[in-house]
Amino acid sequence: MTALPRSTLVLGGARSGKSAYAEGLIRDASIHAVYLATAEAGDQEMAARIARHRSQRGDGWRTIEEPLDLVGTLRMVVRANRPVLVDCLTLWLSNLMHAERDIAVETAALVEAIGELAGPVVFVSNEVGQGIVPDNTLARAFRDHAGRLHQRVAAAADRVVFVTAGLPMVLKSPEKPTVK
Amino acid sequence: MTALPRSTLVLGGARSGKSAYAEGLIRDASIHAVYLATAEAGDQEMAARIARHRSQRGDGWRTIEEPLDLVGTLRMVVRANRPVLVDCLTLWLSNLMHAERDIAVETAALVEAIGELAGPVVFVSNEVGQGIVPDNTLARAFRDHAGRLHQRVAAAADRVVFVTAGLPMVLKSPEKPTVK
Amino acid sequence: MTALPRSTLVLGGARSGKSAYAEGLIRDASIHAVYLATAEAGDQEMAARIARHRSQRGDGWRTIEEPLDLVGTLRMVVRANRPVLVDCLTLWLSNLMHAERDIAVETAALVEAIGELAGPVVFVSNEVGQGIVPDNTLARAFRDHAGRLHQRVAAAADRVVFVTAGLPMVLKSPEKPTVK
Repeated sequence: MTALPRSTLVLGGARSGKSAYAEGLIRDASIHAVYLATAEAGDQEMAARIARHRSQRGDGWRTIEEPLDLVGTLRMVVRANRPVLVDCLTLWLSNLMHAERDIAVETAALVEAIGELAGPVVFVSNEVGQGIVPDNTLARAFRDHAGRLHQRVAAAADRVVFVTAGLPMVLKSPEKPTVK
Repeated sequence: MTALPRSTLVLGGARSGKSAYAEGLIRDASIHAVYLATAEAGDQEMAARIARHRSQRGDGWRTIEEPLDLVGTLRMVVRANRPVLVDCLTLWLSNLMHAERDIAVETAALVEAIGELAGPVVFVSNEVGQGIVPDNTLARAFRDHAGRLHQRVAAAADRVVFVTAGLPMVLKSPEKPTVK
Repeated sequence: MTALPRSTLVLGGARSGKSAYAEGLIRDASIHAVYLATAEAGDQEMAARIARHRSQRGDGWRTIEEPLDLVGTLRMVVRANRPVLVDCLTLWLSNLMHAERDIAVETAALVEAIGELAGPVVFVSNEVGQGIVPDNTLARAFRDHAGRLHQRVAAAADRVVFVTAGLPMVLKSPEKPTVK
C-alpha cells in the first residue's frame, strides 16, 4: 500500500474527472478497496450514470450503496481494514435534505469520524458554489449546506485536492502548510 | 499591525469561507477594524445572514452599512486610519444595477481609489461565472459585470486570493510574480 | 516567435479574462496570427459581443468564423504556418449539439489533431461545471459534454492554464509535472 493519508477530500466541478482521480489514488493504494456510493438509481439518467461509473472502475472493487448512513457504513468498512472511496458527499447531502435530517448533526458526526478513523478514506464532492445565485430557495439552501460541509471536511482532512479538467491542484497536504 | 498589503481581493464561491478568511486577515492586523457591509436587510433570509455574520465576527469591529456609496465611505474610513473589510463587491454591484447606476463609471472610481488609498483594505467578492450560462438576461448581465469588476479590481490590488472550502490559493501577491 | 508550446488550453469562467490572456500569448508569439471564432452572430447580444472582441484584439489578426468544422479549419491554418487562437470550444460544442453531431466522434477528431499539429494552437474554453446542477436536461447534457471535452483536450495539450479575474494559474505545463 502506497502512502495515502488517512483522509483525502477531492473536490471538483461536474465532469471534472474528480472521481477518476480519486479512484486512481485508491487503486494505487490497494486492490481490496470499497466503493461507497451515496447515489441511488432513482431515475434512468442516474441509473445509466451509476452503471457507466461501475464499468469504468473495473473489477477489484466492492460496491456498497448507502444513501443516508454514511458515517456508520464508513466506520464498519474502515474497521475491516479496507480503503474506501466515498462518491459523493454532495449526493449524500441531497439525500439527507430529502429525508429531512438535521444537516448540522450529520456533518458533525462525519467530521468526528474523519478525526478518528485510521483510513485511508477518500471523499469525492462537487463544487456547486461558483455559478450565479440560483433562483429557487431549495437550490440556494443546498448550495449553502454544500459549501459549509466542504469547509468542515476540508478542515478535518489531511489532504484536499481540487480537480479541473482532470488536472489536480493540491489545496492542502501534510507537506504543504496553508498560506495565510 | 502585521504586514497586510494596501489592498487585497478575496474571491470565492458561495459558502467558500472567503469572509472568514478575510476577517482573519484584518483581525491579525488590527483590533480597530471597520466592517463595511454592502448588504441591506431587505428580506428575512438576508437579515438572518447578516445577523449570523455579525455574531461570528464578534466584538471589536465597527460595522458600517453602505449599499451604494462604497468609494466615498472607503475613503472616509481609510483617512481615519482604520483597516477595512468590504463585504462584498458582488452585492454592491447588484445594488448598483438595481439603482441603475453606470457600472463602468462606478468601477473606474473604485479602481482609482484602490490605487490611492493607504489601506489596508480587504475586498470580498463572489465568483459567479463558473456555472452554466444563466437563462435570464439580467443574471447574464450581472455575471458579465461581476467578471469585469473582478478583473479590474484584481489588476489594481496588491494581493488576490481565491478561497475554496476554506482553503486559500494565492493568485497574485507582491512576492509572487504573475506567470505568463 | 517566443516559446509557445504546440498546444495550450486556457480555461476560465465567464468574463474571467481568458480570451485576453490567450490573445496575449499569441500576440507575443507572432504578428501573423489567425483568430478562429466558433461563434456566429445569431442574435444581437452575440453580434455585439463579437464586435467588441474584434475591436479589442486590434489589427494584425485574420479572423475566420467556423461554427462546426473546427478540426478541418485548424489543420488548414496550421499547415499555413500561422499560430491560431480558437475561441471558444464551449461554443463549438454548443453548435455541434444544435446540429446533432456525434460529440464523441468530434472530440476524438479534435484530440487526434492536437496530437499531430505542429502548432502553436491556443484553445479557449468556458468552465461551466462549478455551479448548481441545472434544472433542464439540455443544460445538464451540455455541462457533461463540456467537462468531458475539457478533460480530453487538457490531457492532449502541452499546457493548461486556468484564468480567474484575469490571473492565470498553470494546471499543467511541459516543465511542471502533474502531482498525484
